Amino acid sequence: MKAKIIITPKKAVLDPQGKTVKNALAHLGYTGVSDVHVGKYIEIDLDPAADRETARQTLADACHKFLSNPIIEDYRLELE
Amino acid sequence: MKAKIIITPKKAVLDPQGKTVKNALAHLGYTGVSDVHVGKYIEIDLDPAADRETARQTLADACHKFLSNPIIEDYRLELE
Repeated sequence: MKAKIIITPKKAVLDPQGKTVKNALAHLGYTGVSDVHVGKYIEIDLDPAADRETARQTLADACHKFLSNPIIEDYRLELE
Repeated sequence: MKAKIIITPKKAVLDPQGKTVKNALAHLGYTGVSDVHVGKYIEIDLDPAADRETARQTLADACHKFLSNPIIEDYRLELE
């Protein structure tokens, strides 16, 4: 079982990395870009025998407690 | 139109961030984690009128040239 976690800065929070990528794209001639957000991607390989619901709960807990900073970041957790 | 780019270290490359997250999860009692990979996630908002195929090509080019380091990283590009 695989868990994919995407952590992005909240919309209201300054995203200097995103701004830099946006400017770089514009300088290199890639037009039509209206906004860029840069975040983190975490892929976790889990024991295939693990219970899906328990895994979801423990990972959501880990996301909230230490993988993301819930004050300035949002996370999305997908299990597959 | 939105482009989502996921950049991950290649399997053969050391991933110290992934190792750290794996160890941290184990220390905090989250068992059943066999491997962790940490990468980057870039979300790009594009002009809705832009041509899909052109956008895909220019973004693939940007990914290859400066968003990722193709020697040590893989990227996945999704348009939606």
